[in-house]
Amino acid sequence: MSKFTRVAAMMVTSVLVLSACGGKDNLVVEKKVEAEANSNVTTQVFGPHEHVNQKPTPIKINRIGEHEVNVEMTAQITDIEISKGDIYKAWTFNGEAPGPVVVVNEGDLINFKLTNMDPAVPHSMDFHAVHAAPSVDFANVMPDETGSFTYPANNPGVFMYHCGTKPVLSHIANGMHGMIIVKPKDGYPTDKQIDREYTIIQNEWYKYNDLEDFTNGVPKNVVFSTKALKEGDPNTNGTVGALVDHPLLAKVGDKVRLYVLNVGPNEVSSFHVVGTVMDDVYIDGNPYNQMKGMQTVMLPASGGAVVEFTVTKEGSYPIVTHQFNHVTKGAVAVLKVTKDGLDDGSETMSH
Amino acid sequence: MSKFTRVAAMMVTSVLVLSACGGKDNLVVEKKVEAEANSNVTTQVFGPHEHVNQKPTPIKINRIGEHEVNVEMTAQITDIEISKGDIYKAWTFNGEAPGPVVVVNEGDLINFKLTNMDPAVPHSMDFHAVHAAPSVDFANVMPDETGSFTYPANNPGVFMYHCGTKPVLSHIANGMHGMIIVKPKDGYPTDKQIDREYTIIQNEWYKYNDLEDFTNGVPKNVVFSTKALKEGDPNTNGTVGALVDHPLLAKVGDKVRLYVLNVGPNEVSSFHVVGTVMDDVYIDGNPYNQMKGMQTVMLPASGGAVVEFTVTKEGSYPIVTHQFNHVTKGAVAVLKVTKDGLDDGSETMSH
Amino acid sequence: MSKFTRVAAMMVTSVLVLSACGGKDNLVVEKKVEAEANSNVTTQVFGPHEHVNQKPTPIKINRIGEHEVNVEMTAQITDIEISKGDIYKAWTFNGEAPGPVVVVNEGDLINFKLTNMDPAVPHSMDFHAVHAAPSVDFANVMPDETGSFTYPANNPGVFMYHCGTKPVLSHIANGMHGMIIVKPKDGYPTDKQIDREYTIIQNEWYKYNDLEDFTNGVPKNVVFSTKALKEGDPNTNGTVGALVDHPLLAKVGDKVRLYVLNVGPNEVSSFHVVGTVMDDVYIDGNPYNQMKGMQTVMLPASGGAVVEFTVTKEGSYPIVTHQFNHVTKGAVAVLKVTKDGLDDGSETMSH
Repeated sequence: MSKFTRVAAMMVTSVLVLSACGGKDNLVVEKKVEAEANSNVTTQVFGPHEHVNQKPTPIKINRIGEHEVNVEMTAQITDIEISKGDIYKAWTFNGEAPGPVVVVNEGDLINFKLTNMDPAVPHSMDFHAVHAAPSVDFANVMPDETGSFTYPANNPGVFMYHCGTKPVLSHIANGMHGMIIVKPKDGYPTDKQIDREYTIIQNEWYKYNDLEDFTNGVPKNVVFSTKALKEGDPNTNGTVGALVDHPLLAKVGDKVRLYVLNVGPNEVSSFHVVGTVMDDVYIDGNPYNQMKGMQTVMLPASGGAVVEFTVTKEGSYPIVTHQFNHVTKGAVAVLKVTKDGLDDGSETMSH
Repeated sequence: MSKFTRVAAMMVTSVLVLSACGGKDNLVVEKKVEAEANSNVTTQVFGPHEHVNQKPTPIKINRIGEHEVNVEMTAQITDIEISKGDIYKAWTFNGEAPGPVVVVNEGDLINFKLTNMDPAVPHSMDFHAVHAAPSVDFANVMPDETGSFTYPANNPGVFMYHCGTKPVLSHIANGMHGMIIVKPKDGYPTDKQIDREYTIIQNEWYKYNDLEDFTNGVPKNVVFSTKALKEGDPNTNGTVGALVDHPLLAKVGDKVRLYVLNVGPNEVSSFHVVGTVMDDVYIDGNPYNQMKGMQTVMLPASGGAVVEFTVTKEGSYPIVTHQFNHVTKGAVAVLKVTKDGLDDGSETMSH
Repeated sequence: MSKFTRVAAMMVTSVLVLSACGGKDNLVVEKKVEAEANSNVTTQVFGPHEHVNQKPTPIKINRIGEHEVNVEMTAQITDIEISKGDIYKAWTFNGEAPGPVVVVNEGDLINFKLTNMDPAVPHSMDFHAVHAAPSVDFANVMPDETGSFTYPANNPGVFMYHCGTKPVLSHIANGMHGMIIVKPKDGYPTDKQIDREYTIIQNEWYKYNDLEDFTNGVPKNVVFSTKALKEGDPNTNGTVGALVDHPLLAKVGDKVRLYVLNVGPNEVSSFHVVGTVMDDVYIDGNPYNQMKGMQTVMLPASGGAVVEFTVTKEGSYPIVTHQFNHVTKGAVAVLKVTKDGLDDGSETMSH
C-alpha cells in the first residue's frame, strides 16, 4: 500500500523533460529560482515552457495621427506571483497578467502588432473594443513570428482583450487577458467632477494549465489587479496599487473613478466598494448606459464598467466582489483615504 | 477485489425493464437504435419512457382575430442529439429542445392548448410573457389529456416558457423550455436598420433525469440553439443554424438582430459576439430598456434580450457566453459573414 | 474495518465541551431542545456558543429629528429554523437571520448603536446605505460591549447590511445580514399605484460555521424570507409571510411592490415572479434606474431592487430565483391572491 503511495507521489513530483528551448526565449532569471522554491505549485510545467521565464517587455503605444495609433504587444511566458509566494508560469501579454492597460480614443484606427515570443504555442489577440472579422483579424500568430492587424475602435467603453486561440479557455485562464479603454469622444457627463482614476481587473486562477480544472473546478484564487491611470504619466501602466499590501490612494472629499473589468474566465462579479455608494455607473463604460446610486454592479464574464464614488472620511475602504467566497480567495483591493492623498503608512483593513 | 468491480459494472450497465408502454406513444423509430449505439448515456432510462421516442409534432399557431391567436403544442418524449452522437431522451415541447419559437403580438389574447403525449408524467406550460394565475392557468395536464387555457400577452419582449410541473427543475433540465417573442406594438426604435433576425437560446444539459445532478452537479453540456426568424416564412421554426457545423449567415454591412434567451435551468450567461460591439441592446426585449455599445450582456437564468450589431467584414464570428468553461462544454454558435450573405462553404471558426 | 467506521461515527457525534458560558447570554430556552432533536445538524457547535441561544431582542428605531434617527441593534447567537426541523445556531442581528428590516429616509443621519451579546466573537456593522470610513465607522465591537457610530444615508434604495468582521464570509454565511431601505425624498414615479408592499431577502445556508464549505461548497439551502412593510404598523418587522407555508397576500387587481435583496454570501439571483410580468423595476432601488416589462431581474450578491407587478386573477403566484437548483433547495415564496386580499385557507402551490 505504502509502495503505491510513494510511486504516485514520485509521479507527481517528477519532472518531464520533453523539450529544451534555445535562443532568445530561454531567459531564466535568477529571481525565478527563489520564487519557485516558495511556490506551492507541484504540477509539472508544460514541457516547452519548462525553462522559460521571459522578462516583461514594455508595451509600445504611439499616436501617429489624430485618429490613428500604433500598438505593439508581445505574447510571452513569464512567472507571475499570483499570491504570496505562489508563482504561476503564466501565458501573458507583455509579461503581465492581466496585461498592460491600453488606452485609445473613440474613432481611432488601431495598427496592431503582436510578436509571439512563446517558443511553442500560437497566440492571437481578440480586442472586444473593435470591429473585425475574427477569423481573419484575430488570427493566430505562430511562435517567433509577428502578426499585423488593423481595426477601428468606434465604441467608447471599458473592454476586455484576450488571446483568442483555441482552446480559448486555456489561454485566458493561463493569463492572457487585459483591459482596453476607449475614451468617449464627448467624455462622460461627470468628467469634471473626477479627482482620481484607477483601473481594476478581476480574474481567477486555477490549477496550472489544467483544462479539466479550468472547465469543472472552482478557482484557487480570485484576484484584483489595480493601476493608476493618468494620461501622459509614465506610470500609466505601472502597478500603483495591487492586492491589499499596496493600497490605492485618495484624499478626503475626492470623487474617484474606477475603470472596472471582470475577465473571468468563468465567474461573474458583484463589484462593490465598502463605505460608499456609487454616485454614477456606466455599464460597459458607455456614457449612454448611466445608472445612479448603486451599491453593487453586476459584471458578467468580460463585462466592464466605469464606477464613480465619493470618499468623505479618512480611513481604508475595501473594494471587493460581494461574492464573498471569492474575497476569501483574494478578491480584495483597498483604497486608502488620507487628509492629503498621500500614503501615511498606517495599516489598511482587508476582508 | 476484481469481483466487486465486475459486479458494480454489471449493475451500471444492466437494463431495468420496469414498464412497457403501448399504444400510440410507443413509436420506436429505427434511427433511434443507431443513435443510442453511439450514445455515451449509460444511465437507465426512466421506466415508462424506455421505448418511447415520439416523432416531433409541428406546433400550430393560427391567428383568429386581430388580437387573438390559437397556439397548440404537445408535451412529448423525443430523442434529442445534444452533442455529436450523444442522445438524450428528452422531455420536450413538440419534440424539440428547446421547443419551437412562438411569436405573437403585444396585446394578443392567446388561446393555448397543450396535449400531453407523455405516457406517464403530467406536464404544464408556464409562459413568462402572460398574466395568469399560475395555480389555475399553468395547471397540470395529465398523460393522454389536453388542457386549454387563455391569457393575454400585454408586454413586449423575449420571454422564456417552460413546463411548470413539480419538480420544475427536472422538467426544465430534461428539455421542456423555449422562447416566446411578443412583438412590441410600436416596434423597436431600431427596427428599420435590421437586415437579419435570428433567435438563440442557451441551455444546460446534465446527467439524464438525475435530480441530484441537476441540483448539485455541474452541467455536462452548455449549448446554443439557433433559428432564423422571418414572419410568414415556413422555416420560421426550422433550425437554420445550430452549433458550429451550421453557421448563421449574414452579408458584409448587415445589421443583425438576435433574440437571445438563457433558459438555464441553473446557470447565468455572459452573452457576447466576437468581432463586433453591440450597437443596441434591449434588456428582456422591452424597447424601454435600451442600452448601447455593449460588449457583453448579462442574462440571468430566464433572462432575455434583443441584441443588435453590425458586421463589417467577411469572415466567421463566434457567438459565445464569455463564461468560457461553458464554451468548452459547447456554448458556441457561429455567424458567417460573406459578400452576398450565402454560405460559401468555407470552414468556420469555433472556440 | 467496521471498527474504524464506528470510531469515525463517534467522532462526528461526540460533543466537545470547550467552554461554558454564564450570565445573561446563557439563555437556553426549552423550545430549543425539541428543535435540536429534529435537527439534522451533526456538526459540533463552536465551543463558546455551545449552550448559547439568546432570545431575539427587538430592534429599536426612534426618530429624534426631522432628519435624524437612532437605531439600536444587537449581535447575538440565536437558533434559527432554516428549513423544517433544521436548526442553525446562527450568528444574528437581533436574533433574526436575515436581521430586522431597517427603514429610514433619504437624507437621514443615523445614530447607530451595536450591542454585542456574543460571548466570544467580535462583530460589527457595514451598512451599504451610508457614507463612512469602513476602518473607523464599521469597526469591531467586542463581546459584551456596545459601539456607537454616526453616518448619513444620502442615497435612496434597497441596501444590504452585514457584519464586516473578518472573515466576513463566515459572519455573513452564519446569518449576519439584512436589509436597510432608504426611502427616496421624492418617492418613486409609481408610488401612487402601489397597493401592497413586502420585503423579500434571498440568502444561502451552508454547513454550520464551516469556512471551507462556505468557500468551496455548494449551498445546502437557498431561502427566501419575507415581511410585510407598512409605515407606522407595529408589525413592520414581524414576519408575515415566510417560505411556502405562510403566503404573502394580495387581492385581485392589486399592484404589489417588493423590496428585494440578495445577500448571498456567494450566489447571484435571477429573481422572478410566476404568472406576471414586472411593470416597473428600480435597480438597487434607486428611482433613476427604472426598467420596464421585466420577466427576471439579475441580482448580484448584495444587489437590491424595487420590483412592481400587477396580479389579475385569484390563485397562488410562486416567487423564485429562476436558477432552479436553488428553488429545489428552498428559494421559493408564494403570493396568494384572493378576491378580498385575505387568506382563504386554500392550499398554495409551490415549485
